Amino acid sequence: MIKAGIIGATGYAGGELVRILLGHKNVEIKWYGSKSYIEKAYASVYQNMFQLVQDTCLDDNLEELAKQVDVIFTATPQGYLASVLSEKILNQVKIVDLSADYRIKDVSVYETWYQIEHKSPQFIEEAVYGLCEMNREQVKSARLVANPGCYTTCSILTAYPLVKEGIIDADTLIIDAKSGTSGAGRGAKVPNLFCEVNENIKAYGVTSHRHTPEIEEQLGYAAKKEIKINFTPHLTPMNRGILVTEYASLKTVSSYEEVKALYDKYYANERFIRVLEKDVCPETKWVEGSNYVDINFKIDQRTGRIIMMGALDNLVKGAAGQAVQNMNLMFGEQESEGLLLVPMFP
Amino acid sequence: MIKAGIIGATGYAGGELVRILLGHKNVEIKWYGSKSYIEKAYASVYQNMFQLVQDTCLDDNLEELAKQVDVIFTATPQGYLASVLSEKILNQVKIVDLSADYRIKDVSVYETWYQIEHKSPQFIEEAVYGLCEMNREQVKSARLVANPGCYTTCSILTAYPLVKEGIIDADTLIIDAKSGTSGAGRGAKVPNLFCEVNENIKAYGVTSHRHTPEIEEQLGYAAKKEIKINFTPHLTPMNRGILVTEYASLKTVSSYEEVKALYDKYYANERFIRVLEKDVCPETKWVEGSNYVDINFKIDQRTGRIIMMGALDNLVKGAAGQAVQNMNLMFGEQESEGLLLVPMFP
Amino acid sequence: MIKAGIIGATGYAGGELVRILLGHKNVEIKWYGSKSYIEKAYASVYQNMFQLVQDTCLDDNLEELAKQVDVIFTATPQGYLASVLSEKILNQVKIVDLSADYRIKDVSVYETWYQIEHKSPQFIEEAVYGLCEMNREQVKSARLVANPGCYTTCSILTAYPLVKEGIIDADTLIIDAKSGTSGAGRGAKVPNLFCEVNENIKAYGVTSHRHTPEIEEQLGYAAKKEIKINFTPHLTPMNRGILVTEYASLKTVSSYEEVKALYDKYYANERFIRVLEKDVCPETKWVEGSNYVDINFKIDQRTGRIIMMGALDNLVKGAAGQAVQNMNLMFGEQESEGLLLVPMFP
Amino acid sequence: MIKAGIIGATGYAGGELVRILLGHKNVEIKWYGSKSYIEKAYASVYQNMFQLVQDTCLDDNLEELAKQVDVIFTATPQGYLASVLSEKILNQVKIVDLSADYRIKDVSVYETWYQIEHKSPQFIEEAVYGLCEMNREQVKSARLVANPGCYTTCSILTAYPLVKEGIIDADTLIIDAKSGTSGAGRGAKVPNLFCEVNENIKAYGVTSHRHTPEIEEQLGYAAKKEIKINFTPHLTPMNRGILVTEYASLKTVSSYEEVKALYDKYYANERFIRVLEKDVCPETKWVEGSNYVDINFKIDQRTGRIIMMGALDNLVKGAAGQAVQNMNLMFGEQESEGLLLVPMFP
Repeated sequence: MIKAGIIGATGYAGGELVRILLGHKNVEIKWYGSKSYIEKAYASVYQNMFQLVQDTCLDDNLEELAKQVDVIFTATPQGYLASVLSEKILNQVKIVDLSADYRIKDVSVYETWYQIEHKSPQFIEEAVYGLCEMNREQVKSARLVANPGCYTTCSILTAYPLVKEGIIDADTLIIDAKSGTSGAGRGAKVPNLFCEVNENIKAYGVTSHRHTPEIEEQLGYAAKKEIKINFTPHLTPMNRGILVTEYASLKTVSSYEEVKALYDKYYANERFIRVLEKDVCPETKWVEGSNYVDINFKIDQRTGRIIMMGALDNLVKGAAGQAVQNMNLMFGEQESEGLLLVPMFP
Repeated sequence: MIKAGIIGATGYAGGELVRILLGHKNVEIKWYGSKSYIEKAYASVYQNMFQLVQDTCLDDNLEELAKQVDVIFTATPQGYLASVLSEKILNQVKIVDLSADYRIKDVSVYETWYQIEHKSPQFIEEAVYGLCEMNREQVKSARLVANPGCYTTCSILTAYPLVKEGIIDADTLIIDAKSGTSGAGRGAKVPNLFCEVNENIKAYGVTSHRHTPEIEEQLGYAAKKEIKINFTPHLTPMNRGILVTEYASLKTVSSYEEVKALYDKYYANERFIRVLEKDVCPETKWVEGSNYVDINFKIDQRTGRIIMMGALDNLVKGAAGQAVQNMNLMFGEQESEGLLLVPMFP
Repeated sequence: MIKAGIIGATGYAGGELVRILLGHKNVEIKWYGSKSYIEKAYASVYQNMFQLVQDTCLDDNLEELAKQVDVIFTATPQGYLASVLSEKILNQVKIVDLSADYRIKDVSVYETWYQIEHKSPQFIEEAVYGLCEMNREQVKSARLVANPGCYTTCSILTAYPLVKEGIIDADTLIIDAKSGTSGAGRGAKVPNLFCEVNENIKAYGVTSHRHTPEIEEQLGYAAKKEIKINFTPHLTPMNRGILVTEYASLKTVSSYEEVKALYDKYYANERFIRVLEKDVCPETKWVEGSNYVDINFKIDQRTGRIIMMGALDNLVKGAAGQAVQNMNLMFGEQESEGLLLVPMFP
Repeated sequence: MIKAGIIGATGYAGGELVRILLGHKNVEIKWYGSKSYIEKAYASVYQNMFQLVQDTCLDDNLEELAKQVDVIFTATPQGYLASVLSEKILNQVKIVDLSADYRIKDVSVYETWYQIEHKSPQFIEEAVYGLCEMNREQVKSARLVANPGCYTTCSILTAYPLVKEGIIDADTLIIDAKSGTSGAGRGAKVPNLFCEVNENIKAYGVTSHRHTPEIEEQLGYAAKKEIKINFTPHLTPMNRGILVTEYASLKTVSSYEEVKALYDKYYANERFIRVLEKDVCPETKWVEGSNYVDINFKIDQRTGRIIMMGALDNLVKGAAGQAVQNMNLMFGEQESEGLLLVPMFP
């Protein structure tokens, strides 16, 4: 049995980790960390867990936790893990970090976009960017995995084969993303109240959203050059789901079949990526509750652009599901263990 | 492996049966019946099943189906099963009927409330009312199970111990029920359009809803007398979930502890019924996607009434989950096999 | 021009007052009071008012305000007005109080249910309960109007004619109410976050909601005796709207026509009460944005009960609209001035 | 009094026309045309109109109607008006057509994108494209106004000043649009059911949506050249509202102030266009129920692109409100008469 601890267990991503790990054959959760709910029964914070989880919430204590478990998931605010991580801890335990602390290799880029000083840049190099479909082998041997952001997972996977193969001009890439509200977290803020979100849609973080450099870095590796893109997130009145609509100029005239073949080259054997049938547009509802990313595209001969679309559940493949997928790889488990969740409809 | 066929596989309850059965260790779906989508790929009707289900939809043919499978689920309009069922079929196959055809023992009550002539009343006596928590033993040996309605499951289980123990006056029972819209089915009707349901709540079927006699019959057995109740359903702007709020006069002054003890007497060992902690009100969201019924109550000393509350997912415990629970009992499977679904939040 | 001031202008009811008063021919808003947003542009708090309202928010200062305006609307927490009101102020200005401070005549009842000491009980007697359809004449000459609660307006008006005429037994009255989330206010609390409310329904305040004694008092006047009822509110995933479903035993067998005649006796000439056609159930969507209450009923001969239903927009007839209706009466304006809002659908 | 007739009065746009015209001082609706509900009370189709509209629905009979009224609004399927319009009718009555029949000057473009033969191309030249902010003077003297589409109104107005002034490269324009579901109409179709739309977002009509050529034509006039753009609409789980996010490359480096000045040049005196304050992103909720378009933009120095955003209510400024605005101009009424609707929040 893998013993797991969660720091930030009462956020939405933390709650989803619990839901998924409860269905994992070889994992036992030993620590429900939550600074806000210390000593409260976990099931009183998440009533869905009534009779399923008997534990009470504990404080954040990474050092102590490192002694007791095999893997720690940190679903914490930016800067937390960087401020407490040490070589000693990494020698004791494997860590899957759901925050952004170790996602970006260039520390100055991190500090510019996140407006925080990075407290342990010495671990950045070692950290593996945990997009399993791209970095599977490195994840397997990692001590520290930087679990990708929800928008980034969807944005990158949707464009990756075409950027990698060089058939689109990566600098023309425009990503228009729509997210369910769970992405905004469980903090009590007026803009996230039901009456403010319901019957409403808006863009936010225009030109300045922190997932931008993460997308640029990863797709830059694929493009083998530095790239600059536009990324615009939107808040959508639904609980879960991210849809990205991505626009790019095709370098050469391509047919549907040619492009489809490129997607298949990378994804045909990927269990959690489904390239849909011709002309079927991804919808967030079709992946809800599951670890799937649904992807498709459409070529516009009139404008010479391709429109790529991707959909995932931001709490599963965009957070907790991907974290478990990484953990599976790190511990030699079946990659899909605990993740064979059939999407729920409606 | 139990071979299963579904008639009405493309309705919402049928789709949920597929979702649940895909996670059942010992079941294989052999027949996706759907009159409306014959020869269409099932996964093109329910895109969440892409790559998970390869089959195409078949016509309704109960006789043929009976030869090929061990169990048939009929998620069909009222009157369908009654019009095609025969002794020969029942000798070949077990049937879990999600329609109302065999739920009501008095055929004239059925015909009055449903306004249909019953075509095979000879099987009514034999049919077992499939509320596992009340009729577990009979279900185990049944050939034909009448799977209870969504409203009825929730309404009955919420009041059952108190009616059975006679501490409330069953004739004072008033059930005010609120349902998500999936209960209305997938038929293309104006009142079920997004813009008609969203931002709206209404009562319907006031004094005349067909689940009324079903509740009266079952709670009447518990009360050991004929009872008449009021049942008022409401359409609520959410996909899934039923909440019932039930009012009844207490025959004798009772304390919280006394009433709680009665609930525990019946439900303490029931895996899928959770009597919540004191003062916690059931919410539909906390059971979403799962087979749970969450129940609680509050005594009003001022008026001498008790307010009972129950919540379930209308497509799971209110339809497909309960159907699988019945199937498990009928085939000697673990009762919870395939049903250990952790509720999804948010 | 009537000069108006609003204390609590940045709550949802305050915002709705602004929306309605902007369309009133003879009112000018002189004071947008908001402790939380002092010196912020009102239109930056409610972006819908951009270019429509140029003012900035001011502090709460009832004494100063009383000198500058003709009418003050207090959309404030319980206890605020009671703690600052004085005879001097009431000599300078008329007040419509949207809080509960002066709704309940028996101060001990108020203090029991609200758990606050009442700081100015001397004004309770004078305050007129501002349900225009019942107390029109008294409102006209009032200095201080206690504007009814949202649930209470709907609950009372739906049952009033039948209680008043004594054809139902008021002590059997059970009110099951469903409210949109704007009724919970704009405070930043976890239970009101989008992801907590959306796809969810729950009861709350069961047996203890503060609107209970208000309903009991007013319907008690109609019944000419003290009554005790059950009132259960539910939080519903929609922005606006209240639906009440009320159950009571008929004292005598009555026909649809007889009951309809009683409703017409009281409401046929009421502009803002619409008794619907036979068998049409009220829906909150059909009154959204308007000052209407839609009412109807159904007799259940089987159980001897009547089911009454009422729907209104909690922010309009349930709060700001009714406040303006009261103001119109107090200032000799046309009662419907500013309130001829056509419900918006969808 | 202007006598008005509506063909297609029971669609959502038709219903909104009724709501708005009921508040117009100088208009009387004489004809509620609805093929689907002939002889049914209009208020039974739209229950919000109970007691406000007494009329029953009539058949579509343009010739007869032309004799009885001064203006006809056609909120009808594509092709209807083109198939019945005649010189004789246009001599009797003014027409505001909410369909696409006369929006596109090049009949072959219309026939290609709409896949219908145009039955009266002789009136295309005369028809005025009714975007009041661009064609105010021509509308005033028009007999036949082609009321713009909902997506197009929002898309064009958001980009118009920058295209007209040539500071963006119009061929780089990418429009990512999100619409509430009322835009899909009131037809009973499975994809528009509550359970299919709720908790879901998807793109549709990718590269092929019919509003594309309309946008290209109008912005082409501004750019003084033929342009080709990408336009991608998305279905969003809300009743009303359109948000467009538009991306284009800036031809020259520009500051916020320079671009803001261009917007002001065109829109500072426009009553229904609100260019928001710096860094405030438009949200559909802030314009709901009103005739406003809220617009803003953000320059991305990193990529040299500008992101423009626009929001409107698809049934008001995107359909019925704009139609009334056109009617006002055609009849010499105050342009804003009946349209001073304060947006409703929440």
